[in-house]
Amino acid sequence: MATYLAHVNVMLRPLINDPQGLVVRDGLHSLGFEGVSAVRVGKRIDITVAAASVPEAEAAVRDMCAKLLANPVIEDFEFEVTEVAAVD
Amino acid sequence: MATYLAHVNVMLRPLINDPQGLVVRDGLHSLGFEGVSAVRVGKRIDITVAAASVPEAEAAVRDMCAKLLANPVIEDFEFEVTEVAAVD
Repeated sequence: MATYLAHVNVMLRPLINDPQGLVVRDGLHSLGFEGVSAVRVGKRIDITVAAASVPEAEAAVRDMCAKLLANPVIEDFEFEVTEVAAVD
Repeated sequence: MATYLAHVNVMLRPLINDPQGLVVRDGLHSLGFEGVSAVRVGKRIDITVAAASVPEAEAAVRDMCAKLLANPVIEDFEFEVTEVAAVD
């Protein structure tokens, strides 16, 4: 078994309204950042997980996203898995 | 001017307690993902911004993080900027 770190990004789908992003965009405009045309706010989830291999860790993380971390109706997810420590 | 897309990650600093992450970890355990040892939940912010160059866009995004997007007392941020469209 080894330990893997998964960086998961969960974002609202492009056509879904993102009120939080609109508020941040307006806030940035108020602070003088006039060049900002769009802001989308999502979740960044770092997961430390034990698995036998990268494919096994990726399969587990994909399953976690489908079952808990992302709402498949309105959100998309992407992730990358890296090995952080090997344990015998 | 060109258009740049910045992917910003804002995470609680490692020593800061993350109740949301603990809840997600316990939820994953309840779903049978026993191999999960730690979860940290942060924000993922995608910003579309107009700037003259990558360094200028990076400077603007760094300034946005310092002024609005991240709480420097308890959060760290990192970001990457990519050009999405050049406009004359």
